[in-house]
Amino acid sequence: MKNTYHIKVRWGDTDAATIVYYPNFYKWMDEATHEFFEAAGYSTPALQKNYKIQLPLLEAACTFKAPLKHNDKVQVITFIEEINRKVLRLRHEFIKGNSVIANGYEKRAWTTVEKDQMKAVPVPDFIKEALTTQ
Amino acid sequence: MKNTYHIKVRWGDTDAATIVYYPNFYKWMDEATHEFFEAAGYSTPALQKNYKIQLPLLEAACTFKAPLKHNDKVQVITFIEEINRKVLRLRHEFIKGNSVIANGYEKRAWTTVEKDQMKAVPVPDFIKEALTTQ
Amino acid sequence: MKNTYHIKVRWGDTDAATIVYYPNFYKWMDEATHEFFEAAGYSTPALQKNYKIQLPLLEAACTFKAPLKHNDKVQVITFIEEINRKVLRLRHEFIKGNSVIANGYEKRAWTTVEKDQMKAVPVPDFIKEALTTQ
Amino acid sequence: MKNTYHIKVRWGDTDAATIVYYPNFYKWMDEATHEFFEAAGYSTPALQKNYKIQLPLLEAACTFKAPLKHNDKVQVITFIEEINRKVLRLRHEFIKGNSVIANGYEKRAWTTVEKDQMKAVPVPDFIKEALTTQ
Repeated sequence: MKNTYHIKVRWGDTDAATIVYYPNFYKWMDEATHEFFEAAGYSTPALQKNYKIQLPLLEAACTFKAPLKHNDKVQVITFIEEINRKVLRLRHEFIKGNSVIANGYEKRAWTTVEKDQMKAVPVPDFIKEALTTQ
Repeated sequence: MKNTYHIKVRWGDTDAATIVYYPNFYKWMDEATHEFFEAAGYSTPALQKNYKIQLPLLEAACTFKAPLKHNDKVQVITFIEEINRKVLRLRHEFIKGNSVIANGYEKRAWTTVEKDQMKAVPVPDFIKEALTTQ
Repeated sequence: MKNTYHIKVRWGDTDAATIVYYPNFYKWMDEATHEFFEAAGYSTPALQKNYKIQLPLLEAACTFKAPLKHNDKVQVITFIEEINRKVLRLRHEFIKGNSVIANGYEKRAWTTVEKDQMKAVPVPDFIKEALTTQ
Repeated sequence: MKNTYHIKVRWGDTDAATIVYYPNFYKWMDEATHEFFEAAGYSTPALQKNYKIQLPLLEAACTFKAPLKHNDKVQVITFIEEINRKVLRLRHEFIKGNSVIANGYEKRAWTTVEKDQMKAVPVPDFIKEALTTQ
């Protein structure tokens, strides 16, 4: 599946160069991941509550093609690019009109948290299916 | 006691008007409060660990006199303005050079947290003394 | 007029107490102000472009009644509480379900910016009307 | 040259998992870059003022090895990893005690800004020397 998360650049997202301060793209990728899981039927609060699962970051990267300005409307298109036993990689494409603004990914671990200790565990098959089905 | 917290305006603190985005002043007040408690000998992580105490906000306000720019160096001077049985009010003054840039306060409750329920409790006398002594 | 701005608490809005980090309420008040002006027919980018007008903060305050958690859906209801010759005060009410979560205001100046100098000027009557009409 | 930027994890940097919200690592990389240029004798406000130079992001990435908690003290060690005609790559290593917490880089263009148009231009030799000398 693909999920589209709609954002609007807020005044506070800009910096003194009058364009978006770049760490905000990672904030939006994180938000897009939460929206993606919710759209797949497994919101992250539910994963936490029902399965004690969190999704800590192993790696994230983004390439920037064009700047964004205040009030720009952007689509963030998210899908699973790769899913291994305990690790998944989410691709996020930032589109404004017909232009690609930025393109990034997040590598996250499927992780239980017990007594403050995080431990990667296998992603169940029904989750894999929910995340990757058309 | 008074504590001085030294900050430097970061690029990401500015907005497209080339000045500091105003919610950052509240971020700095929050940081200054944590620094204030640490300077008084009771860091907020220690309060949490040793006494199960948190300090949720009841109210915060700030007046803004002059804008700040990237790389400005600012002192935030913090002291207890009022302390009641379960509530304390911290004053924060923002100074750049000889100018007052902003002036705000936070009203916080002295609160235990059990099973996700917050409950205001009396501030112990030894804490009151540590926070208000010269 | 009143404008309702719909927000969803994002993971990054929370802190280690598992509730919203309070400076975010000011970020949302700022966003709600921009939405309010846009709904009134005068978006802040248009005010900047067509009239060289900005709306710097003179003062902001908020009282907090109940905490917010990740994924909570909240309405921010914004209206003009007072409008003087060069200054306006916007009230922002945060509502979740039937509960008031927080209640704040912003006092902003109607300001031209020339050569990096900000100068408060009178709010035109047609703007006053657009902002306060039913 | 290498520059060390000292940070302390602030309460607002954490999220409901009680660890640092990951986009903050990019904020810190950005801050470390500004500190690096200032340490090299060419602060970014001076580059902007004297040479009309900005340093927009082309790409940024980070790998995360261990979480950070509130009040952790961290060193960010920054150096130039690669410098081409118009592009430079800064490496940032996050160290707490003897542990590597995270490791990232930023690829930035050396860019003039005229009439809102950004254009990459060659990095002058004296800048290259200042940034890479021991």
